[in-house]
Amino acid sequence: MATPAAPLRVALLGCGTVGAEVVRLLHTSGDDLSARIGAPLELAGIAVRRLGRARDLPVPDELFTTDAAGLVARPDIDLVVEVIGGLEPARSLIVAALTAGKSVVTANKALLAEDGATLHAAAALSGADLYYEASVAGAIPLLRPLRESLAGDQISRVTGIVNGTTNFVLTRMDETGAGFQDALDEATSLGYAEADPTADVEGFDAAAKAAILAGLAFHTRVVAADVHREGITEVTAADVASAKAMGCVVKLLAIAERVSDASGNGVSVRVHPAMIPRTHPLASVREAYNAVFVEAASAGRLMFYGPGAGGSPTASAVLGDLVAVARNTLSGARGAGSSDYADLRVRAMGEVVTRYHISLDVADKAGVLAAVANAFADHDVSIRTVRQEGHGDDASLVVVTHTASDADLQAVVEQLRGLDSVRAVASVMRVEGQEP
Amino acid sequence: MATPAAPLRVALLGCGTVGAEVVRLLHTSGDDLSARIGAPLELAGIAVRRLGRARDLPVPDELFTTDAAGLVARPDIDLVVEVIGGLEPARSLIVAALTAGKSVVTANKALLAEDGATLHAAAALSGADLYYEASVAGAIPLLRPLRESLAGDQISRVTGIVNGTTNFVLTRMDETGAGFQDALDEATSLGYAEADPTADVEGFDAAAKAAILAGLAFHTRVVAADVHREGITEVTAADVASAKAMGCVVKLLAIAERVSDASGNGVSVRVHPAMIPRTHPLASVREAYNAVFVEAASAGRLMFYGPGAGGSPTASAVLGDLVAVARNTLSGARGAGSSDYADLRVRAMGEVVTRYHISLDVADKAGVLAAVANAFADHDVSIRTVRQEGHGDDASLVVVTHTASDADLQAVVEQLRGLDSVRAVASVMRVEGQEP
Repeated sequence: MATPAAPLRVALLGCGTVGAEVVRLLHTSGDDLSARIGAPLELAGIAVRRLGRARDLPVPDELFTTDAAGLVARPDIDLVVEVIGGLEPARSLIVAALTAGKSVVTANKALLAEDGATLHAAAALSGADLYYEASVAGAIPLLRPLRESLAGDQISRVTGIVNGTTNFVLTRMDETGAGFQDALDEATSLGYAEADPTADVEGFDAAAKAAILAGLAFHTRVVAADVHREGITEVTAADVASAKAMGCVVKLLAIAERVSDASGNGVSVRVHPAMIPRTHPLASVREAYNAVFVEAASAGRLMFYGPGAGGSPTASAVLGDLVAVARNTLSGARGAGSSDYADLRVRAMGEVVTRYHISLDVADKAGVLAAVANAFADHDVSIRTVRQEGHGDDASLVVVTHTASDADLQAVVEQLRGLDSVRAVASVMRVEGQEP
Repeated sequence: MATPAAPLRVALLGCGTVGAEVVRLLHTSGDDLSARIGAPLELAGIAVRRLGRARDLPVPDELFTTDAAGLVARPDIDLVVEVIGGLEPARSLIVAALTAGKSVVTANKALLAEDGATLHAAAALSGADLYYEASVAGAIPLLRPLRESLAGDQISRVTGIVNGTTNFVLTRMDETGAGFQDALDEATSLGYAEADPTADVEGFDAAAKAAILAGLAFHTRVVAADVHREGITEVTAADVASAKAMGCVVKLLAIAERVSDASGNGVSVRVHPAMIPRTHPLASVREAYNAVFVEAASAGRLMFYGPGAGGSPTASAVLGDLVAVARNTLSGARGAGSSDYADLRVRAMGEVVTRYHISLDVADKAGVLAAVANAFADHDVSIRTVRQEGHGDDASLVVVTHTASDADLQAVVEQLRGLDSVRAVASVMRVEGQEP
């Protein structure tokens, strides 16, 4: 082996669950990392909010500082790892590091989904690397497969289960027939849901990841606000049972798809619960696992599966990125950067085309089906199957449509709500994962 | 956008199914590739065995040549794509290109598994890149995830379904109860098996891929001859039914695992049919699909799924690599090269530890179970479950063991064969994919 190069000096910003695990892995895997990089990594400073907390980490106390900005600015720092999270001070610190030519590894999905453009611009200006594998789906490698392995292909659609909490809840509802609240309570008691589960169950977390995935897959700029978002709080035991009856399972999906039509090229990005066939590879993703299903013109149907969160998996993704940016720094190169050359228009949800499962509480009398069918026909939404369930006061109609635009479907639902023979539109859920 | 750089000139060696698809994709995706690389790719020559064949490709006839060595040596060639396959002349051509500092993209699994070291050495010497994503599991991104995304982690085990033909055959046996030959006949008639299926059904193809995967995952040198290999020709309908009865499915697995014990660190690499639980993510990989399941210390359990073969998926992988080496060439950098610093000893099959499913045709009389149990106890192989099936002449015992070494298990089988009360050892199959 050649003479070892001088160490690369790393600043770690943040020392919570992920940060502490990064410290431990740098300590225990030092020799392997050095062999893979061609130079040792040396942890040169750790920025924390408060000193003096017992951290039980294999590093001297002197490494800790509360002056994150000062640490980033130190001339002996080569690389910066940001695991503070949130918008500020993370954004200012990352921009300062990149501007000074120091490559950055970050796990900050909120910041990337909100203002990735600012970070990417700072990286492009100085030629430093910005890597963020850990920001989506924990340790599941997505950044390199999407950006590099499929660089010679055309991705048409990315469908992900990217939130472990909601997947755990929906798995339990599917397995036990429980309602949403009971399943959520179980998730909370087992530590799969936080005390305030809003960010997960309302789909905010998944929407941020969807924005990042869409940007990666389609070489365009998408922010969290562009993402149509519906959570799982309205999913009922009846929906899950109805899905089961048609060979499906309910999942919270993050979908980014490329759209090409008369109005040009675009992208639609959305997060919502949907029914998918049990034979679909995503259907077997259970508990808190995550997976991302990718459809590409030449590669076909790919899926990437693994743990979507947790200190160790996220730290593994951070270290993988750290090895890459360290190698690039040593060789004076730059990794495959972000690109938004495609500059695709983000389509409104009304333009999105998919299939729907609609459950109606109806009066059990002649003429109901005709009135319902007319409502669909009036808006050119084609019906694939209709099933009547129950009788008398319990009568319901379950309609599954062929593909229709979201706008047309909403118009149908409005009309159905106005029908005398329809007591209630019990649920409307999209059906995904099948050939149109 | 900056002024476009001068084109990078590509030599294509071989123009069969994959090569022709590479030509088509270079033609149709030129603008996207140029945007992603920062310079256009220009196809400067195509080496074929015979000129004058009608190829119906969007390139002028003058590009074709039978002088592959001359094409590689041309000073205007920057990058070389090798899709000829086989050992020679592919090896000489690749070595010549790398030695001249031209980065190479290859899909040649046979050559990499047989003599990857020669190619890697040539690449290391000149600093050129050698990329080979297309050599294992078609378009499923594995090279970057294993070598780069998990570069900060410790992989403990890689378990792959890496041969589409055998997976199709085993899927049919599982679905229909068919025997091996009937399922193979169906695969042949549907085009999933070649006229001579030996390389697939005897596990040679999977063994070459296992060698490449092991080298990637464990940073060590493994060749095809190091891989213990058993095919699926001996798998019977009874084996598949027996697997089903215990909630398992039979798959041909390629397994590479890191072993650490008193005799030091090592790696074991093997290809054989095995029973895995239906709840295991690999169990849902059906038909001709491939998947690779990775267990890593920090990342946990990951899986990569997709089409394992075919012209388009393989061409997608080739183009992904081509974009990467083109970017590296432009920036004067080198990608994450192969490394064998770990230098692990390849363990003999006898040392491999796993669980076993043994089916015995036995005499239906008192004392049989005791004699059988003694045979296991004599070699310290612990029994997990025993199940008697049938009566009289049809009586059989199905034994599932706890983990045991292959050598000990073979000794048990020898002893069982010598027992009066055992008419035949009907089958011995490994059980994988569960916690020990």
